[in-house]
Amino acid sequence: MNRTFDIAVIGATSLVGEALLELLDEREFPVGKLTALACDEAIGQVASFRERNLRVRALDAFDLTDVALVFVLEPLAPAQRARIEAAGCALVDLSGAPGSAPCVAAQANPQALVGRQVRAPLPAVVALRRVTLTACLAVSAHGREGIEELARQTAQLLNARPLEPGLFGRQIAFNLLAASGAEEDGHAVDERRLAGELREVLALPELPVAATCVQAPVFFGDSLAVSLQCAAPVDLEAVERCLDAAPGVERIEAGDWPTAVGDAVGQESVYVGRLRRGLHDPCQLDLWIVSDNVRKGAALNAVQLAELLLNPRP
Amino acid sequence: MNRTFDIAVIGATSLVGEALLELLDEREFPVGKLTALACDEAIGQVASFRERNLRVRALDAFDLTDVALVFVLEPLAPAQRARIEAAGCALVDLSGAPGSAPCVAAQANPQALVGRQVRAPLPAVVALRRVTLTACLAVSAHGREGIEELARQTAQLLNARPLEPGLFGRQIAFNLLAASGAEEDGHAVDERRLAGELREVLALPELPVAATCVQAPVFFGDSLAVSLQCAAPVDLEAVERCLDAAPGVERIEAGDWPTAVGDAVGQESVYVGRLRRGLHDPCQLDLWIVSDNVRKGAALNAVQLAELLLNPRP
Repeated sequence: MNRTFDIAVIGATSLVGEALLELLDEREFPVGKLTALACDEAIGQVASFRERNLRVRALDAFDLTDVALVFVLEPLAPAQRARIEAAGCALVDLSGAPGSAPCVAAQANPQALVGRQVRAPLPAVVALRRVTLTACLAVSAHGREGIEELARQTAQLLNARPLEPGLFGRQIAFNLLAASGAEEDGHAVDERRLAGELREVLALPELPVAATCVQAPVFFGDSLAVSLQCAAPVDLEAVERCLDAAPGVERIEAGDWPTAVGDAVGQESVYVGRLRRGLHDPCQLDLWIVSDNVRKGAALNAVQLAELLLNPRP
Repeated sequence: MNRTFDIAVIGATSLVGEALLELLDEREFPVGKLTALACDEAIGQVASFRERNLRVRALDAFDLTDVALVFVLEPLAPAQRARIEAAGCALVDLSGAPGSAPCVAAQANPQALVGRQVRAPLPAVVALRRVTLTACLAVSAHGREGIEELARQTAQLLNARPLEPGLFGRQIAFNLLAASGAEEDGHAVDERRLAGELREVLALPELPVAATCVQAPVFFGDSLAVSLQCAAPVDLEAVERCLDAAPGVERIEAGDWPTAVGDAVGQESVYVGRLRRGLHDPCQLDLWIVSDNVRKGAALNAVQLAELLLNPRP
């Protein structure tokens, strides 16, 4: 990429926004002019990019004509979205439910982009028949509010003060919540999204997926217990070689295992450990995956998508 | 039961010991003389039973001749166990790995006792083919040490002091640990035990079970995300009726769900919620289960086993 692109970030002062600006810098994204925008009380706040302070401006008063790419990190009104699209900007949208993958709206085929960007390595060595997973999610998926709520509740409980649940409506400190967000046929929005993304990433649109999303009392980093059913007995060594060769994946050797806080937070890699064949079924592969939900789970995906959008390879 | 039985509790001042003594009282167990015993620094401490204080005595110096039943809540040396057995005492042993079900040594067939005691209701309405579960376990499975470690780490982190991991060897506060205890072929001791217990409780000795045990930053109460594969499409209403009729089970209606802290802790029931058919497979049943690991998970099972041991029905 020799030319540069003018970029706007809507929600630059959010947790994901901060990680996004860091990554745009670290990955030497060809940023021309960067504008921090917002629709809410963040207007007037200050974001930081390449050691310069950026005053956050109001989206509705900003002329998008010269902007090539807009990162959307907070929910927009339909009229606001329409205005961005009418201005001809490419869009990387992370404003969906917490923990959701970015959605791309651009001239290119977004499905193909997503498929090319996140290429799950395992289908090359195991024929997947079913995925069952429990995802224990960090409160930072709910932004600073989630972090403040967990910290506040924890301090109240440690100081034996009465608990006043806020954001999550229940005690999240020293507890686990079985769901977050609305449900449909008993499946939470996050669970449907996760199952759909997994099918997409694995390029297996018919794969049965069972996902349970649990809100954990963890500030940063998601932890997933995953069980895969395969068509044939699992060759563990082949799986290990495959993961070792996969970009963005760090495999932890047997006997040790990664944790969200100890390994993943602040990193771009996904950490995989506790690889084991099923206790009662050699065609089953169980594993444990941790990743930084803000940096890897949202911001990095957004930047990688933007890179593909602006420089699509054939 | 008209007669009473002299009972000894080894480890009466532990968390499980306290819950056990409470339950013996609440359930009007026919206790004659109750003696609190220990092999370690708990000797000389005070336990409480039916509003009376009991000084903890040394096991090795205590004459077991008149004792009908011994609850074992802490690990014993082989010679100590042999002495109890030689004295002809019935034994309810909870000293195994954290979270383990009690093991019974008695004249009766222990397998049959266990099978009769915990009768899992679901096999009556669904033909199970496979169980996959993630068990998020409370630190109190490690006794007071586990509780103190989580509280200490949490306070250190909230006060921005450097963390010094103790019992778990890692940061457990605001984090999740993928395993506890030694592993064999990648499966932790807890996971093997849980899978074995489940097969026993379901009376399905060949059922494939995949279990992941996660150490959660929760003081009390275990939370399980469970996915069941069945032989036929799941009749959700029949499952609900079956759970509603099962003793010791509280079903939470759709739209709400139980949590360990909010519902289970301090209760004898197991709480079940988020019942749903698989998102992509009508033969799958997903659910969320919480229970009090100390009271229900250990102490109540022990008392129920003791009731059966001393008054076996045909």
